[in-house]
Amino acid sequence: MPDSLDKLLHPRSIAIVGASAHSRPDFVTALQNLGFKGNLYLTNIKEPEVHGIKTYLNINDIPGPVDYVISAIPARAVPELMDDCARKGVKVAHLYTGRFGETGRAQDAALEQEVLRRAKQGGLRIIGPNCMGLYYPKLGIGWSDDFPTDSGPVGMASQSSYAPHDLLLLATPRGLRFSKVIGFGNALDLNECDFLEYLTDDPDTKIILFYIEGVKDGPRFLRALRRAADRKPTIVIKGGKGEAGARAAASHTASLAGSIQTWHALVTQAGAIFAESIEEMMDYALTFSFLEPITGLNVGIAGSGGGPSVLAADQCEAAGLKVIPLPNAIREELKRKDISIWDWVSNPVDMSITGGMFSAGDLLHMMAKDNHFDLLIAIMGEMHYQKHMMPGFTADAFLSRFGLTGYEGKPLLTVVPDKGYDQEWFQAPSASLMADIRTKLVAARIPIYPTMERAARAAHVAHDYYQRNKRKERRR
Amino acid sequence: MPDSLDKLLHPRSIAIVGASAHSRPDFVTALQNLGFKGNLYLTNIKEPEVHGIKTYLNINDIPGPVDYVISAIPARAVPELMDDCARKGVKVAHLYTGRFGETGRAQDAALEQEVLRRAKQGGLRIIGPNCMGLYYPKLGIGWSDDFPTDSGPVGMASQSSYAPHDLLLLATPRGLRFSKVIGFGNALDLNECDFLEYLTDDPDTKIILFYIEGVKDGPRFLRALRRAADRKPTIVIKGGKGEAGARAAASHTASLAGSIQTWHALVTQAGAIFAESIEEMMDYALTFSFLEPITGLNVGIAGSGGGPSVLAADQCEAAGLKVIPLPNAIREELKRKDISIWDWVSNPVDMSITGGMFSAGDLLHMMAKDNHFDLLIAIMGEMHYQKHMMPGFTADAFLSRFGLTGYEGKPLLTVVPDKGYDQEWFQAPSASLMADIRTKLVAARIPIYPTMERAARAAHVAHDYYQRNKRKERRR
Repeated sequence: MPDSLDKLLHPRSIAIVGASAHSRPDFVTALQNLGFKGNLYLTNIKEPEVHGIKTYLNINDIPGPVDYVISAIPARAVPELMDDCARKGVKVAHLYTGRFGETGRAQDAALEQEVLRRAKQGGLRIIGPNCMGLYYPKLGIGWSDDFPTDSGPVGMASQSSYAPHDLLLLATPRGLRFSKVIGFGNALDLNECDFLEYLTDDPDTKIILFYIEGVKDGPRFLRALRRAADRKPTIVIKGGKGEAGARAAASHTASLAGSIQTWHALVTQAGAIFAESIEEMMDYALTFSFLEPITGLNVGIAGSGGGPSVLAADQCEAAGLKVIPLPNAIREELKRKDISIWDWVSNPVDMSITGGMFSAGDLLHMMAKDNHFDLLIAIMGEMHYQKHMMPGFTADAFLSRFGLTGYEGKPLLTVVPDKGYDQEWFQAPSASLMADIRTKLVAARIPIYPTMERAARAAHVAHDYYQRNKRKERRR
Repeated sequence: MPDSLDKLLHPRSIAIVGASAHSRPDFVTALQNLGFKGNLYLTNIKEPEVHGIKTYLNINDIPGPVDYVISAIPARAVPELMDDCARKGVKVAHLYTGRFGETGRAQDAALEQEVLRRAKQGGLRIIGPNCMGLYYPKLGIGWSDDFPTDSGPVGMASQSSYAPHDLLLLATPRGLRFSKVIGFGNALDLNECDFLEYLTDDPDTKIILFYIEGVKDGPRFLRALRRAADRKPTIVIKGGKGEAGARAAASHTASLAGSIQTWHALVTQAGAIFAESIEEMMDYALTFSFLEPITGLNVGIAGSGGGPSVLAADQCEAAGLKVIPLPNAIREELKRKDISIWDWVSNPVDMSITGGMFSAGDLLHMMAKDNHFDLLIAIMGEMHYQKHMMPGFTADAFLSRFGLTGYEGKPLLTVVPDKGYDQEWFQAPSASLMADIRTKLVAARIPIYPTMERAARAAHVAHDYYQRNKRKERRR
């Protein structure tokens, strides 16, 4: 199955059935701008051309072979489309089309079953219905040209399509890049297990993200999840955990949701990582994507003033990290360097007391060289980028206080707050400076988290994962 | 005491001792740009003028009376300054100067005590040392001209000064405004109880924020906290909760921190609200500042697509809100309006199924009129503001989908994600559009939260507070 699914996801030609320039998502623009290299055909029964591309009335009018169909036509026309696809030799149809089982109406559920019946009869596989389908940057396939054209190590399969959509748009500026993302909606034919197994075996995918509302085949899913988590960091969001969420999931993808306790136990016992939100999932993916394994809990922190440093220590400890005292060797080094506050500096390093004697980077580099520390967190806090900038102050000048290299392979995380700009702050020079800083951090492959709590939680989760995996290797 | 503290905080004249154009904070620029109306004098033993203002050698050379002194000179010169202040008839000295008890060195602690002795001898009160002192926008006093010049209902007292500094810079674009903020550092003379009692009685302060590392007088503090929480929503952050945090607090403001369990119990039993971070404190303050009392837990949600709506329901329930099913009356209204999906729409409203038949605002307004709902949350999610904007799309066009008026006094919260822009996304037209949207929401007095979890938690905390207060009133 995975082999053949891999073939299905590598179409040489795509036909968008019911293509339109006015719809959202605009698959035509997306495929054009993401750079799809294969043949692209469109059908539309009203408009003779769409975005400058000639349309056909029916896919059987298309001259060349069609491997992959994206259906954007109304639900009632889909059964016949399945027959047309079969005639044309189409291998897989992604049904963007919705209003099937998820409406909760008997006739829509029956229509969905009729679609499945005809697809099976015609030897055709279905992705969906009621989903955005595939984003595959290497091939230039996707549902939005807001997504990056370059690839990365993160693969995602998701029953919801807006969940990965939101995640993609939030995570792109932080540098997260994707191998393949599949929104599979109602999972009428190809289901959650097929995609999970596929990403597990996909050599381009190093980290698996998985959003699930309900599963069709419990035992197979558990096996698939265990196998995925065994091979790659696998982060799972369960949608529809509570009463209302389950009700929402039913009307979203017609899923039976199952209780939260069951799910939490199931996911963690399988060795996968449970995330509570898109933001958490993004944070965890960023840690696995950017950093070498986090092998211990001892954290060194520098970059902010007194109170925020105190809170940073609290928040790290609450997340399960250990904020160890400054080792004697570092105190001695400070003393040797004639730093008069050598006995007062602590971890976290309160930058407001340093009086310019040393930078956050100086201390972080000492911590990087000291084997008491397992990871480092640099706080690039609000106090440094205000509305009234010091003239000539640049992102490089700011980042030189931290030094982005020379961390001896020790994981370095940064906290760069999101400010939620209104127009006044958006216009201030510091806003552009912050964007520069983020661009440079991402280029240096240093992960950014908007709060200390989120950085600390992501670090702890990664450490947990590597600990479990180490133990697993020992057992073998 | 509160009366005389009020007088101390209303100086007719301020002298900055050791004023410099090159220091950060630059108190001179801050007072000038915040619009301090009283007489401003500077002293500096080296520079004859600073920022165009003539300097004196000693405050006793200043021709007019001086009510309030800001000390920016080294610690060892402060005892003599206390004598000078006494001679000059100064009423209160804010010692920005640090390196006293907080260094952990015996001689620094002794110096601090000497400062206190001389101040008492001279009939002088002290704010600090080791703090930023007062931000009082109505009088144009403060330590940074990044802070707003207009006032608001939030008063804050804080042992840390960077904690309120960060909070001010994060909360300003979200529309939070302040009556007075006092960073009081080591609390050598005027202490946490003085300031808490002061804000409790201050008519300009409707909401109290309090950051504390350790207290000098436990029983008095408990009384003061109970009295504050009895009169106004009082939100407390305890810095130095864990082992490392306590160590950091000791080296920050020489505080004995006390265990987290004790503190959590103490704060909540006093009727105050415990916050874990600056961000949480800001969220809570925003809810109390912008919204009428939240009197029930039943929440109506609209604005996002399927998966994010499912997660929104989960996150609201996890925070203690109740995501009730869509009431029949609303279904009937939809049916009357010929909305074909009247039986499928649910709460949260999944906007991806509406096909343009109605807007999020249409449903939210129906919910506002329906007495099953106590509060509403509008999700203004990422999917709406992408890199490639639809031409001519404006903030007003976006917000008209929600309608900002006509919510019948029902609390409306919004989730507007922070994106953490890199340069590429910062340059995209959607970034400026988002800033416009935030500006307009703030102008309409609608609070913004960056994630659903934070919005839901803030709503639940506010509801809790009002419930407790209602019960208290009944008991009387």
